[in-house]
Amino acid sequence: MITQRPLEEFLNDLASGAPTPGGGSAAAIIGAMGAALLSMVCNVTIGKKGHEAVESDLKAVRDESERLRARLTSMVAEDIAAFDGLMAAYRLPKANDEEKSRRAEAIQLNLRAATETPLACARACAEVVMLARRIAEKGFAGVISDAGVGVLAANSALRSAALNVYINAPALKDRAYATAAAAEVESLLDHSARESEAVFELVRGRLG
Amino acid sequence: MITQRPLEEFLNDLASGAPTPGGGSAAAIIGAMGAALLSMVCNVTIGKKGHEAVESDLKAVRDESERLRARLTSMVAEDIAAFDGLMAAYRLPKANDEEKSRRAEAIQLNLRAATETPLACARACAEVVMLARRIAEKGFAGVISDAGVGVLAANSALRSAALNVYINAPALKDRAYATAAAAEVESLLDHSARESEAVFELVRGRLG
Repeated sequence: MITQRPLEEFLNDLASGAPTPGGGSAAAIIGAMGAALLSMVCNVTIGKKGHEAVESDLKAVRDESERLRARLTSMVAEDIAAFDGLMAAYRLPKANDEEKSRRAEAIQLNLRAATETPLACARACAEVVMLARRIAEKGFAGVISDAGVGVLAANSALRSAALNVYINAPALKDRAYATAAAAEVESLLDHSARESEAVFELVRGRLG
Repeated sequence: MITQRPLEEFLNDLASGAPTPGGGSAAAIIGAMGAALLSMVCNVTIGKKGHEAVESDLKAVRDESERLRARLTSMVAEDIAAFDGLMAAYRLPKANDEEKSRRAEAIQLNLRAATETPLACARACAEVVMLARRIAEKGFAGVISDAGVGVLAANSALRSAALNVYINAPALKDRAYATAAAAEVESLLDHSARESEAVFELVRGRLG
């Protein structure tokens, strides 16, 4: 599993000319880092004197951010599988009509997966962004900047995942699905951009 | 070395209630991922047929992005050391005037390091952002989205590092240094925000 390899090796692989891991994997990991930082603010705040009133809410938030962190971490492998599947479909033989038709079908099937995977990543990142406000408002002031880092990471990961939807959706023959996917991404981007900036300002304000 | 540990363990540590690694370490790693993705687009493009004219420029860009990746990766340990140093200074005894004065001096020394470290991270991230345009313009179209992911990662890492400057600079008694640090961060943020959005749009345009 690639996420069990050392961080420096992951960075080496990202920098290399090999096609994977690429931007889709980076987006999933950056989103997972965002979720991890939100969990951290919850973990530091829960049990801290003077923060009893927010404890049960922050426990609920932490359950969500930990679920999202696990989901985003597992998406690294899904991104690589989707990319490899699409590349394998493009490499299928096309010497005659039957082969051409089988190849075209395989490409469409894999394009769908290569659109759905970054779309799922974008959705999870948007969920991380939407969790951040409660943490930025209620988290212990001493670590509140980490909520700001978390929301920025999640929003930039969402925008990165969106790029992979833009790449793959246009080639889909199922136009209804492609149009719906593009519209969903635009809506996620729009909401998250506004929310992440609002939370970032809230955090800056709490830094004094 | 923390960056030699498995990626999933790094995420676990980030999510835990332990004070380090925190947002400063995450910023350095996200910046390093941005630099790695720029290197990747260079590595894929260099040697590719039809891209001979941009090869020498992209080799020069890759030298820079790899230098910045190494620098940002090493900043994770520096961030942890700066944080630990500051916490140790706050824990120094303060039973009498001599101890109080020694403690105040140690705090100032470590606050300076805890301001300089994220400032250096912000500078390196801004350099990554400023490299991205040449790659977005000249890189192989098949991986150009990764230049977009790289520039977004670097800019969000810069903004994250800035938060740590905001936290530590106000408590510095050396006001001239603190003011200069804050002004430099604002200038880096301003330039990089504009440049990263311009490069992101350039990439979106090249996706067709």
